Amino acid sequence: MSLEGSLANGVHRLSLRVYYEDTDFSGYVYHANYLKFCERARSDLMRLLGIDQAVLFDGQDRTFIVIRKMSCEFVRPARFDSVITVESVAKPSRGPRLEMQQKIVLGADLLFSAEVTAVIVDGKGRPRRPDSVMEAALAKIAS
Amino acid sequence: MSLEGSLANGVHRLSLRVYYEDTDFSGYVYHANYLKFCERARSDLMRLLGIDQAVLFDGQDRTFIVIRKMSCEFVRPARFDSVITVESVAKPSRGPRLEMQQKIVLGADLLFSAEVTAVIVDGKGRPRRPDSVMEAALAKIAS
Amino acid sequence: MSLEGSLANGVHRLSLRVYYEDTDFSGYVYHANYLKFCERARSDLMRLLGIDQAVLFDGQDRTFIVIRKMSCEFVRPARFDSVITVESVAKPSRGPRLEMQQKIVLGADLLFSAEVTAVIVDGKGRPRRPDSVMEAALAKIAS
Amino acid sequence: MSLEGSLANGVHRLSLRVYYEDTDFSGYVYHANYLKFCERARSDLMRLLGIDQAVLFDGQDRTFIVIRKMSCEFVRPARFDSVITVESVAKPSRGPRLEMQQKIVLGADLLFSAEVTAVIVDGKGRPRRPDSVMEAALAKIAS
Repeated sequence: MSLEGSLANGVHRLSLRVYYEDTDFSGYVYHANYLKFCERARSDLMRLLGIDQAVLFDGQDRTFIVIRKMSCEFVRPARFDSVITVESVAKPSRGPRLEMQQKIVLGADLLFSAEVTAVIVDGKGRPRRPDSVMEAALAKIAS
Repeated sequence: MSLEGSLANGVHRLSLRVYYEDTDFSGYVYHANYLKFCERARSDLMRLLGIDQAVLFDGQDRTFIVIRKMSCEFVRPARFDSVITVESVAKPSRGPRLEMQQKIVLGADLLFSAEVTAVIVDGKGRPRRPDSVMEAALAKIAS
Repeated sequence: MSLEGSLANGVHRLSLRVYYEDTDFSGYVYHANYLKFCERARSDLMRLLGIDQAVLFDGQDRTFIVIRKMSCEFVRPARFDSVITVESVAKPSRGPRLEMQQKIVLGADLLFSAEVTAVIVDGKGRPRRPDSVMEAALAKIAS
Repeated sequence: MSLEGSLANGVHRLSLRVYYEDTDFSGYVYHANYLKFCERARSDLMRLLGIDQAVLFDGQDRTFIVIRKMSCEFVRPARFDSVITVESVAKPSRGPRLEMQQKIVLGADLLFSAEVTAVIVDGKGRPRRPDSVMEAALAKIAS
Protein backbone atom coordinates (compact mmCIF):
# COMPACT_ATOMS: atom_id res chain seq x y z
CA MET A 1 0.00 0.00 0.00
CA SER A 2 1.30 3.41 -0.93
CA LEU A 3 0.96 6.46 1.29
CA GLU A 4 -0.54 8.47 -1.57
CA GLY A 5 -3.01 5.84 -2.72
CA SER A 6 -3.35 4.45 -6.21
CA LEU A 7 -4.77 5.63 -9.50
CA ALA A 8 -6.32 3.17 -11.92
CA ASN A 9 -8.97 3.53 -14.63
CA GLY A 10 -9.57 7.12 -13.68
CA VAL A 11 -10.33 6.33 -10.04
CA HIS A 12 -8.00 7.43 -7.26
CA ARG A 13 -8.24 5.35 -4.09
CA LEU A 14 -6.74 6.34 -0.75
CA SER A 15 -7.13 4.15 2.33
CA LEU A 16 -6.82 5.68 5.73
CA ARG A 17 -7.37 4.80 9.34
CA VAL A 18 -9.89 6.47 11.67
CA TYR A 19 -8.02 7.69 14.76
CA TYR A 20 -9.16 9.15 18.09
CA GLU A 21 -8.75 12.70 16.71
CA ASP A 22 -11.31 11.98 13.97
CA THR A 23 -14.13 10.94 16.30
CA ASP A 24 -16.39 12.93 18.59
CA PHE A 25 -18.32 12.01 21.73
CA SER A 26 -21.11 10.40 19.69
CA GLY A 27 -18.60 7.60 19.10
CA TYR A 28 -18.37 8.22 15.35
CA VAL A 29 -16.34 10.37 13.00
CA TYR A 30 -17.09 14.09 13.41
CA HIS A 31 -18.93 15.15 10.25
CA ALA A 32 -16.48 17.86 9.10
CA ASN A 33 -13.64 15.36 9.18
CA TYR A 34 -14.98 13.54 6.12
CA LEU A 35 -14.08 16.72 4.24
CA LYS A 36 -10.54 16.45 5.58
CA PHE A 37 -10.32 12.88 4.31
CA CYS A 38 -11.49 14.05 0.88
CA GLU A 39 -8.91 16.82 0.83
CA ARG A 40 -6.14 14.34 1.65
CA ALA A 41 -7.25 12.28 -1.32
CA ARG A 42 -7.34 15.30 -3.64
CA SER A 43 -3.84 16.32 -2.54
CA ASP A 44 -2.55 12.81 -3.13
CA LEU A 45 -4.23 12.62 -6.51
CA MET A 46 -2.57 15.91 -7.52
CA ARG A 47 0.77 14.54 -6.37
CA LEU A 48 0.33 11.35 -8.38
CA LEU A 49 -0.45 13.50 -11.43
CA GLY A 50 2.78 15.41 -10.95
CA ILE A 51 1.10 18.61 -9.75
CA ASP A 52 3.06 20.00 -6.81
CA GLN A 53 0.77 22.26 -4.79
CA ALA A 54 3.62 23.55 -2.61
CA VAL A 55 5.52 24.71 -5.69
CA LEU A 56 2.42 26.25 -7.25
CA PHE A 57 1.77 28.10 -4.04
CA ASP A 58 5.33 29.30 -3.46
CA GLY A 59 6.10 30.08 -7.11
CA GLN A 60 6.42 33.60 -8.48
CA ASP A 61 3.18 33.01 -10.28
CA ARG A 62 1.21 32.12 -7.17
CA THR A 63 -1.48 29.58 -7.91
CA PHE A 64 -3.92 27.88 -5.58
CA ILE A 65 -6.66 25.35 -5.97
CA VAL A 66 -9.57 26.42 -3.78
CA ILE A 67 -12.86 24.71 -3.07
CA ARG A 68 -15.86 26.69 -4.29
CA LYS A 69 -18.74 24.27 -3.66
CA MET A 70 -19.16 20.99 -1.92
CA SER A 71 -22.45 19.09 -1.72
CA CYS A 72 -22.13 16.42 0.90
CA GLU A 73 -24.23 13.43 1.89
CA PHE A 74 -23.47 11.74 5.16
CA VAL A 75 -24.86 8.26 4.57
CA ARG A 76 -23.45 6.04 7.32
CA PRO A 77 -21.03 6.90 10.08
CA ALA A 78 -17.50 5.54 10.43
CA ARG A 79 -16.09 4.34 13.74
CA PHE A 80 -12.75 4.49 15.50
CA ASP A 81 -10.16 2.11 14.11
CA SER A 82 -11.92 1.48 10.80
CA VAL A 83 -9.90 1.57 7.60
CA ILE A 84 -11.93 3.52 5.10
CA THR A 85 -11.25 4.34 1.46
CA VAL A 86 -11.72 7.63 -0.36
CA GLU A 87 -12.57 7.15 -4.05
CA SER A 88 -12.14 10.21 -6.27
CA VAL A 89 -13.17 10.65 -9.90
CA ALA A 90 -12.44 13.85 -11.80
CA LYS A 91 -14.73 15.26 -14.47
CA PRO A 92 -13.38 17.07 -17.55
CA SER A 93 -12.17 20.48 -16.43
CA ARG A 94 -13.40 23.64 -18.11
CA GLY A 95 -11.00 26.53 -17.87
CA PRO A 96 -10.34 27.34 -14.23
CA ARG A 97 -12.99 24.94 -12.88
CA LEU A 98 -12.28 21.44 -11.62
CA GLU A 99 -15.10 19.09 -10.76
CA MET A 100 -14.81 15.86 -8.92
CA GLN A 101 -16.94 13.21 -7.34
CA GLN A 102 -15.70 11.74 -4.10
CA LYS A 103 -17.01 8.82 -2.09
CA ILE A 104 -15.90 7.32 1.17
CA VAL A 105 -16.54 3.61 1.55
CA LEU A 106 -16.01 0.94 4.18
CA GLY A 107 -15.81 -2.31 2.24
CA ALA A 108 -19.00 -2.34 0.16
CA ASP A 109 -20.78 0.25 2.30
CA LEU A 110 -21.08 3.86 1.17
CA LEU A 111 -20.43 6.20 4.10
CA PHE A 112 -20.17 9.60 2.46
CA SER A 113 -20.39 11.18 -0.97
CA ALA A 114 -19.62 14.65 -2.25
CA GLU A 115 -19.81 16.64 -5.45
CA VAL A 116 -16.86 19.02 -5.39
CA THR A 117 -16.22 22.16 -7.45
CA ALA A 118 -12.77 23.68 -7.15
CA VAL A 119 -11.33 26.70 -8.91
CA ILE A 120 -7.76 27.52 -9.83
CA VAL A 121 -6.97 31.04 -8.65
CA ASP A 122 -4.00 33.36 -8.57
CA GLY A 123 -2.58 35.11 -5.52
CA LYS A 124 -5.37 37.67 -5.60
CA GLY A 125 -8.12 35.08 -5.76
CA ARG A 126 -8.86 35.62 -9.47
CA PRO A 127 -9.77 32.52 -11.48
CA ARG A 128 -7.11 31.39 -13.93
CA ARG A 129 -6.82 28.62 -16.47
CA PRO A 130 -4.51 25.76 -15.58
CA ASP A 131 -1.14 25.97 -17.33
CA SER A 132 -0.48 23.41 -20.03
CA VAL A 133 1.27 20.97 -17.70
CA MET A 134 -1.59 20.97 -15.25
CA GLU A 135 -4.16 20.82 -18.05
CA ALA A 136 -2.51 17.78 -19.56
CA ALA A 137 -2.29 16.12 -16.17
CA LEU A 138 -5.96 16.76 -15.44
CA ALA A 139 -7.03 15.58 -18.89
CA LYS A 140 -5.42 12.22 -18.20
CA ILE A 141 -7.86 11.42 -15.42
CA ALA A 142 -11.08 13.13 -16.43
CA SER A 143 -13.78 10.59 -17.16
CA MET B 1 -21.65 39.47 24.07
CA SER B 2 -22.77 36.05 25.17
CA LEU B 3 -20.72 32.91 24.62
CA GLU B 4 -23.71 31.17 23.03
CA GLY B 5 -24.70 34.00 20.71
CA SER B 6 -28.11 35.61 20.47
CA LEU B 7 -31.46 34.70 19.02
CA ALA B 8 -33.74 37.39 17.61
CA ASN B 9 -36.48 37.34 14.98
CA GLY B 10 -35.74 33.74 14.17
CA VAL B 11 -32.06 34.36 13.43
CA HIS B 12 -29.34 32.98 15.67
CA ARG B 13 -26.06 34.88 15.53
CA LEU B 14 -22.77 33.61 16.95
CA SER B 15 -19.57 35.64 16.68
CA LEU B 16 -16.25 33.89 16.88
CA ARG B 17 -12.60 34.60 16.36
CA VAL B 18 -10.38 32.94 13.74
CA TYR B 19 -7.36 31.44 15.51
CA TYR B 20 -4.13 29.84 14.27
CA GLU B 21 -5.71 26.39 14.48
CA ASP B 22 -8.41 27.40 11.99
CA THR B 23 -6.05 28.46 9.21
CA ASP B 24 -3.86 26.49 6.83
CA PHE B 25 -0.68 27.33 4.94
CA SER B 26 -2.64 29.22 2.27
CA GLY B 27 -3.06 31.91 4.96
CA TYR B 28 -6.83 31.48 5.15
CA VAL B 29 -9.31 29.35 7.06
CA TYR B 30 -9.12 25.67 6.08
CA HIS B 31 -12.33 24.90 4.22
CA ALA B 32 -13.64 22.13 6.48
CA ASN B 33 -13.41 24.45 9.48
CA TYR B 34 -16.37 26.51 8.26
CA LEU B 35 -18.42 23.40 8.99
CA LYS B 36 -17.06 23.39 12.53
CA PHE B 37 -18.12 26.99 12.97
CA CYS B 38 -21.61 26.11 11.74
CA GLU B 39 -21.81 23.21 14.16
CA ARG B 40 -20.85 25.45 17.07
CA ALA B 41 -23.70 27.75 16.09
CA ARG B 42 -26.19 24.90 15.85
CA SER B 43 -25.15 23.60 19.26
CA ASP B 44 -25.53 27.06 20.77
CA LEU B 45 -28.90 27.55 19.12
CA MET B 46 -30.09 24.23 20.58
CA ARG B 47 -28.86 25.33 24.00
CA LEU B 48 -30.68 28.66 23.76
CA LEU B 49 -33.85 26.74 22.87
CA GLY B 50 -33.48 24.62 25.98
CA ILE B 51 -32.47 21.47 24.11
CA ASP B 52 -29.63 19.78 25.97
CA GLN B 53 -27.75 17.54 23.55
CA ALA B 54 -25.64 15.95 26.29
CA VAL B 55 -28.80 14.87 28.15
CA LEU B 56 -30.44 13.62 24.96
CA PHE B 57 -27.33 11.63 24.20
CA ASP B 58 -26.84 10.18 27.68
CA GLY B 59 -30.51 9.60 28.40
CA GLN B 60 -32.09 6.16 28.56
CA ASP B 61 -33.89 7.04 25.36
CA ARG B 62 -30.72 7.85 23.44
CA THR B 63 -31.30 10.57 20.88
CA PHE B 64 -28.87 12.25 18.53
CA ILE B 65 -29.11 14.95 15.96
CA VAL B 66 -27.00 13.93 12.97
CA ILE B 67 -26.19 15.79 9.77
CA ARG B 68 -27.52 14.07 6.68
CA LYS B 69 -26.77 16.61 3.94
CA MET B 70 -24.85 19.81 3.70
CA SER B 71 -24.53 21.87 0.52
CA CYS B 72 -21.75 24.36 1.00
CA GLU B 73 -20.61 27.40 -0.93
CA PHE B 74 -17.24 28.86 -0.09
CA VAL B 75 -17.61 32.45 -1.27
CA ARG B 76 -14.73 34.41 0.23
CA PRO B 77 -12.01 33.25 2.60
CA ALA B 78 -11.59 34.38 6.20
CA ARG B 79 -8.21 35.30 7.67
CA PHE B 80 -6.45 34.84 10.98
CA ASP B 81 -7.70 37.16 13.71
CA SER B 82 -10.97 38.09 12.00
CA VAL B 83 -14.15 38.07 14.03
CA ILE B 84 -16.78 36.39 11.91
CA THR B 85 -20.47 35.74 12.56
CA VAL B 86 -22.47 32.60 11.90
CA GLU B 87 -26.13 33.33 11.11
CA SER B 88 -28.52 30.39 11.38
CA VAL B 89 -32.17 30.21 10.34
CA ALA B 90 -34.26 27.10 10.90
CA LYS B 91 -37.02 25.99 8.55
CA PRO B 92 -40.19 24.29 9.83
CA SER B 93 -39.27 20.75 10.79
CA ARG B 94 -41.15 17.77 9.40
CA GLY B 95 -41.07 14.74 11.60
CA PRO B 96 -37.49 13.68 12.19
CA ARG B 97 -36.00 16.12 9.69
CA LEU B 98 -34.54 19.50 10.61
CA GLU B 99 -33.56 21.97 7.92
CA MET B 100 -31.51 25.05 8.39
CA GLN B 101 -29.78 27.73 6.41
CA GLN B 102 -26.46 28.94 7.72
CA LYS B 103 -24.28 31.81 6.57
CA ILE B 104 -20.93 33.06 7.76
CA VAL B 105 -20.33 36.76 7.31
CA LEU B 106 -17.55 39.25 7.99
CA GLY B 107 -19.30 42.57 8.38
CA ALA B 108 -21.37 42.92 5.21
CA ASP B 109 -19.40 40.29 3.27
CA LEU B 110 -20.73 36.80 2.79
CA LEU B 111 -17.95 34.25 3.28
CA PHE B 112 -19.79 30.95 3.34
CA SER B 113 -23.31 29.59 3.06
CA ALA B 114 -24.80 26.17 3.63
CA GLU B 115 -28.11 24.37 3.35
CA VAL B 116 -28.19 21.82 6.14
CA THR B 117 -30.42 18.79 6.61
CA ALA B 118 -30.22 17.05 9.95
CA VAL B 119 -32.15 14.07 11.23
CA ILE B 120 -33.10 13.10 14.75
CA VAL B 121 -32.13 9.46 15.33
CA ASP B 122 -32.19 6.98 18.16
CA GLY B 123 -29.24 4.98 19.47
CA LYS B 124 -29.51 2.58 16.53
CA GLY B 125 -29.51 5.34 13.94
CA ARG B 126 -33.25 5.05 13.19
CA PRO B 127 -35.08 8.32 12.46
CA ARG B 128 -37.44 9.44 15.21
CA ARG B 129 -39.80 12.34 15.66
CA PRO B 130 -38.73 15.00 18.14
CA ASP B 131 -40.48 14.68 21.50
CA SER B 132 -43.04 17.34 22.35
CA VAL B 133 -40.56 19.54 24.21
CA MET B 134 -38.11 19.57 21.33
CA GLU B 135 -40.90 20.02 18.81
CA ALA B 136 -42.23 23.07 20.63
CA ALA B 137 -38.73 24.50 20.91
CA LEU B 138 -38.05 24.03 17.21
CA ALA B 139 -41.43 25.47 16.22
CA LYS B 140 -40.52 28.69 18.01
CA ILE B 141 -37.73 29.47 15.61
CA ALA B 142 -38.85 28.01 12.29
CA SER B 143 -39.38 30.77 9.77
CA MET C 1 -18.00 38.77 28.46
CA SER C 2 -15.48 39.76 25.85
CA LEU C 3 -14.45 37.48 22.98
CA GLU C 4 -10.77 38.01 23.81
CA GLY C 5 -11.07 37.43 27.55
CA SER C 6 -9.92 39.77 30.28
CA LEU C 7 -6.61 40.77 31.79
CA ALA C 8 -6.38 41.70 35.46
CA ASN C 9 -3.53 41.57 37.99
CA GLY C 10 -1.29 39.90 35.48
CA VAL C 11 -3.68 37.02 34.81
CA HIS C 12 -5.41 36.64 31.47
CA ARG C 13 -8.67 34.68 31.57
CA LEU C 14 -10.47 33.34 28.51
CA SER C 15 -13.70 31.38 28.82
CA LEU C 16 -14.71 29.03 26.06
CA ARG C 17 -17.24 26.35 25.33
CA VAL C 18 -16.46 22.69 24.63
CA TYR C 19 -18.09 21.74 21.33
CA TYR C 20 -18.54 18.42 19.49
CA GLU C 21 -15.35 19.05 17.49
CA ASP C 22 -13.29 19.17 20.70
CA THR C 23 -14.34 15.76 22.01
CA ASP C 24 -13.41 12.25 20.94
CA PHE C 25 -15.17 8.91 21.26
CA SER C 26 -14.09 8.56 24.89
CA GLY C 27 -16.72 11.23 25.59
CA TYR C 28 -14.15 13.81 26.73
CA VAL C 29 -11.99 16.49 25.16
CA TYR C 30 -9.27 15.03 22.92
CA HIS C 31 -5.97 15.65 24.70
CA ALA C 32 -4.27 17.73 21.98
CA ASN C 33 -7.18 20.15 21.96
CA TYR C 34 -6.19 21.57 25.35
CA LEU C 35 -3.14 22.93 23.54
CA LYS C 36 -5.46 24.63 21.04
CA PHE C 37 -7.36 26.23 23.89
CA CYS C 38 -4.08 27.50 25.35
CA GLU C 39 -3.03 28.93 22.00
CA ARG C 40 -6.33 30.79 21.68
CA ALA C 41 -5.66 32.35 25.06
CA ARG C 42 -2.10 33.33 24.14
CA SER C 43 -3.32 34.94 20.90
CA ASP C 44 -5.99 36.86 22.79
CA LEU C 45 -3.52 37.95 25.43
CA MET C 46 -1.18 39.27 22.70
CA ARG C 47 -4.10 41.13 21.14
CA LEU C 48 -5.07 42.71 24.48
CA LEU C 49 -1.44 43.84 24.88
CA GLY C 50 -1.55 45.53 21.48
CA ILE C 51 0.68 42.95 19.77
CA ASP C 52 -0.77 42.15 16.35
CA GLN C 53 0.53 38.76 15.24
CA ALA C 54 -0.89 39.13 11.72
CA VAL C 55 1.04 42.38 11.24
CA LEU C 56 4.22 40.92 12.73
CA PHE C 57 3.90 37.99 10.40
CA ASP C 58 3.12 39.95 7.24
CA GLY C 59 5.49 42.83 7.96
CA GLN C 60 8.71 43.43 6.03
CA ASP C 61 10.55 42.40 9.14
CA ARG C 62 8.84 39.03 9.45
CA THR C 63 8.47 37.99 13.06
CA PHE C 64 6.80 34.95 14.56
CA ILE C 65 6.26 33.67 18.03
CA VAL C 66 6.84 29.92 18.01
CA ILE C 67 6.42 27.36 20.77
CA ARG C 68 9.66 25.68 21.75
CA LYS C 69 8.64 23.60 24.77
CA MET C 70 5.42 22.69 26.44
CA SER C 71 5.18 20.51 29.53
CA CYS C 72 1.59 19.43 29.95
CA GLU C 73 -0.33 17.77 32.75
CA PHE C 74 -3.75 16.39 31.96
CA VAL C 75 -5.39 16.39 35.39
CA ARG C 76 -9.12 15.93 34.82
CA PRO C 77 -11.03 15.66 31.56
CA ALA C 78 -13.54 18.20 30.26
CA ARG C 79 -16.86 17.20 28.75
CA PHE C 80 -19.03 18.40 25.89
CA ASP C 81 -20.91 21.60 26.62
CA SER C 82 -18.77 22.67 29.58
CA VAL C 83 -17.60 26.26 29.78
CA ILE C 84 -13.96 26.16 30.78
CA THR C 85 -11.49 28.95 31.48
CA VAL C 86 -7.89 29.27 30.38
CA GLU C 87 -5.76 31.23 32.86
CA SER C 88 -2.43 32.52 31.56
CA VAL C 89 0.39 34.13 33.50
CA ALA C 90 3.54 35.40 31.79
CA LYS C 91 6.97 35.32 33.39
CA PRO C 92 9.56 38.07 32.80
CA SER C 93 10.91 37.58 29.29
CA ARG C 94 14.62 37.28 28.64
CA GLY C 95 15.66 38.34 25.18
CA PRO C 96 13.88 36.23 22.59
CA ARG C 97 12.35 33.83 25.15
CA LEU C 98 8.83 34.10 26.50
CA GLU C 99 7.71 31.89 29.35
CA MET C 100 4.21 31.41 30.52
CA GLN C 101 2.16 29.26 32.83
CA GLN C 102 -1.26 28.23 31.62
CA LYS C 103 -4.04 26.44 33.44
CA ILE C 104 -7.44 25.30 32.32
CA VAL C 105 -10.09 25.20 35.01
CA LEU C 106 -13.76 24.28 35.32
CA GLY C 107 -15.03 26.28 38.25
CA ALA C 108 -12.64 25.40 41.08
CA ASP C 109 -11.34 22.23 39.41
CA LEU C 110 -8.00 22.16 37.66
CA LEU C 111 -8.26 20.25 34.39
CA PHE C 112 -4.96 20.96 32.69
CA SER C 113 -1.73 22.85 33.30
CA ALA C 114 1.24 23.67 31.11
CA GLU C 115 4.61 25.35 31.32
CA VAL C 116 5.18 27.02 27.98
CA THR C 117 8.40 28.32 26.44
CA ALA C 118 8.03 30.35 23.26
CA VAL C 119 10.69 32.06 21.18
CA ILE C 120 10.48 35.12 18.98
CA VAL C 121 12.03 34.30 15.60
CA ASP C 122 12.53 36.00 12.26
CA GLY C 123 11.46 34.67 8.87
CA LYS C 124 14.42 32.28 8.82
CA GLY C 125 13.70 30.85 12.25
CA ARG C 126 16.53 32.73 13.99
CA PRO C 127 15.79 33.95 17.53
CA ARG C 128 15.42 37.71 17.84
CA ARG C 129 14.79 40.07 20.72
CA PRO C 130 11.33 41.64 20.88
CA ASP C 131 11.25 45.20 19.55
CA SER C 132 10.75 47.94 22.13
CA VAL C 133 6.97 48.04 21.71
CA MET C 134 6.61 44.33 22.26
CA GLU C 135 9.11 44.38 25.11
CA ALA C 136 7.18 47.12 26.89
CA ALA C 137 3.91 45.25 26.34
CA LEU C 138 5.33 42.02 27.72
CA ALA C 139 6.88 43.76 30.70
CA LYS C 140 3.46 45.04 31.72
CA ILE C 141 2.17 41.55 32.42
CA ALA C 142 5.21 39.64 33.60
CA SER C 143 4.78 38.64 37.22
CA MET D 1 4.46 0.24 3.66
CA SER D 2 1.79 -0.72 6.13
CA LEU D 3 -0.94 1.66 7.29
CA GLU D 4 -0.14 0.88 10.92
CA GLY D 5 3.62 1.24 10.64
CA SER D 6 6.21 -1.33 11.65
CA LEU D 7 7.66 -2.61 14.90
CA ALA D 8 11.26 -3.76 15.05
CA ASN D 9 13.81 -3.97 17.86
CA GLY D 10 11.41 -2.26 20.23
CA VAL D 11 10.91 0.78 18.01
CA HIS D 12 7.59 1.47 16.34
CA ARG D 13 7.80 3.60 13.19
CA LEU D 14 4.83 5.22 11.49
CA SER D 15 5.26 7.36 8.38
CA LEU D 16 2.63 9.91 7.53
CA ARG D 17 2.07 12.76 5.15
CA VAL D 18 1.58 16.41 6.17
CA TYR D 19 -1.67 17.65 4.61
CA TYR D 20 -3.32 21.08 4.35
CA GLU D 21 -5.32 20.39 7.52
CA ASP D 22 -2.12 19.96 9.54
CA THR D 23 -0.63 23.36 8.70
CA ASP D 24 -1.48 26.86 9.84
CA PHE D 25 -0.96 30.28 8.27
CA SER D 26 2.70 30.34 9.35
CA GLY D 27 3.23 27.78 6.58
CA TYR D 28 4.23 25.00 8.96
CA VAL D 29 2.50 22.30 10.98
CA TYR D 30 0.35 23.72 13.79
CA HIS D 31 2.09 22.80 17.03
CA ALA D 32 -0.73 20.81 18.62
CA ASN D 33 -0.91 18.55 15.58
CA TYR D 34 2.40 16.88 16.46
CA LEU D 35 0.50 15.46 19.44
CA LYS D 36 -2.09 14.05 17.04
CA PHE D 37 0.64 12.38 15.03
CA CYS D 38 2.04 10.84 18.22
CA GLU D 39 -1.39 9.57 19.20
CA ARG D 40 -1.84 7.92 15.80
CA ALA D 41 1.47 6.14 16.36
CA ARG D 42 0.48 5.01 19.85
CA SER D 43 -2.85 3.67 18.56
CA ASP D 44 -1.08 1.80 15.78
CA LEU D 45 1.49 0.41 18.16
CA MET D 46 -1.30 -0.87 20.43
CA ARG D 47 -2.97 -2.48 17.43
CA LEU D 48 0.25 -4.20 16.36
CA LEU D 49 0.59 -5.56 19.91
CA GLY D 50 -2.91 -7.02 19.71
CA ILE D 51 -4.46 -4.50 22.10
CA ASP D 52 -7.82 -3.41 20.72
CA GLN D 53 -8.73 -0.04 22.23
CA ALA D 54 -12.26 -0.11 20.81
CA VAL D 55 -12.94 -3.44 22.54
CA LEU D 56 -11.35 -2.27 25.79
CA PHE D 57 -13.51 0.82 25.67
CA ASP D 58 -16.77 -0.91 24.77
CA GLY D 59 -16.23 -3.94 26.98
CA GLN D 60 -18.20 -4.61 30.16
CA ASP D 61 -15.04 -3.87 32.07
CA ARG D 62 -14.51 -0.44 30.54
CA THR D 63 -10.86 0.39 30.19
CA PHE D 64 -9.19 3.43 28.70
CA ILE D 65 -5.63 4.52 28.21
CA VAL D 66 -5.42 8.22 29.02
CA ILE D 67 -2.52 10.63 28.74
CA ARG D 68 -1.43 12.06 32.09
CA LYS D 69 1.71 14.01 31.16
CA MET D 70 3.43 15.01 27.99
CA SER D 71 6.65 17.03 27.86
CA CYS D 72 7.12 18.28 24.35
CA GLU D 73 10.01 19.88 22.50
CA PHE D 74 9.30 21.50 19.18
CA VAL D 75 12.71 21.40 17.51
CA ARG D 76 12.17 22.12 13.83
CA PRO D 77 8.94 22.69 11.96
CA ALA D 78 7.47 20.38 9.31
CA ARG D 79 6.00 21.67 6.07
CA PHE D 80 3.10 20.77 3.85
CA ASP D 81 3.62 17.64 1.78
CA SER D 82 6.52 16.28 3.82
CA VAL D 83 6.51 12.62 4.78
CA ILE D 84 7.52 12.45 8.41
CA THR D 85 8.06 9.48 10.71
CA VAL D 86 6.94 9.01 14.29
CA GLU D 87 9.31 6.79 16.29
CA SER D 88 7.93 5.39 19.54
CA VAL D 89 9.78 3.48 22.25
CA ALA D 90 8.00 2.15 25.32
CA LYS D 91 9.60 1.94 28.75
CA PRO D 92 8.84 -0.91 31.16
CA SER D 93 5.37 -0.29 32.58
CA ARG D 94 4.75 -0.19 36.30
CA GLY D 95 1.24 -1.11 37.29
CA PRO D 96 -1.21 1.25 35.65
CA ARG D 97 1.47 3.59 34.28
CA LEU D 98 2.80 3.44 30.74
CA GLU D 99 5.77 5.53 29.72
CA MET D 100 6.97 6.15 26.23
CA GLN D 101 9.39 8.28 24.31
CA GLN D 102 8.25 9.58 20.97
CA LYS D 103 10.18 11.43 18.29
CA ILE D 104 9.12 12.83 14.96
CA VAL D 105 11.82 12.93 12.31
CA LEU D 106 12.17 14.04 8.70
CA GLY D 107 14.99 11.95 7.30
CA ALA D 108 17.87 12.52 9.73
CA ASP D 109 16.38 15.71 11.21
CA LEU D 110 14.65 15.67 14.57
CA LEU D 111 11.48 17.79 14.43
CA PHE D 112 9.75 16.98 17.70
CA SER D 113 10.25 14.88 20.80
CA ALA D 114 8.03 14.01 23.72
CA GLU D 115 8.14 12.13 26.99
CA VAL D 116 4.70 10.62 27.49
CA THR D 117 3.09 9.23 30.62
CA ALA D 118 -0.21 7.42 30.16
CA VAL D 119 -2.38 5.68 32.71
CA ILE D 120 -4.78 2.79 32.33
CA VAL D 121 -8.08 3.71 33.96
CA ASP D 122 -11.52 2.19 34.38
CA GLY D 123 -14.82 3.77 33.41
CA LYS D 124 -14.73 5.97 36.51
CA GLY D 125 -11.23 7.23 35.84
CA ARG D 126 -9.59 5.10 38.55
CA PRO D 127 -6.13 3.71 37.73
CA ARG D 128 -6.06 -0.01 37.13
CA ARG D 129 -3.34 -2.51 36.34
CA PRO D 130 -3.26 -3.88 32.81
CA ASP D 131 -4.81 -7.34 32.51
CA SER D 132 -2.41 -10.19 31.84
CA VAL D 133 -2.84 -10.05 28.06
CA MET D 134 -2.07 -6.36 27.92
CA GLU D 135 0.78 -6.74 30.39
CA ALA D 136 2.40 -9.45 28.29
CA ALA D 137 1.97 -7.36 25.15
CA LEU D 138 3.52 -4.31 26.75
CA ALA D 139 6.40 -6.31 28.20
CA LYS D 140 7.34 -7.43 24.69
CA ILE D 141 8.24 -3.92 23.62
CA ALA D 142 9.55 -2.27 26.76
CA SER D 143 13.21 -1.44 26.39
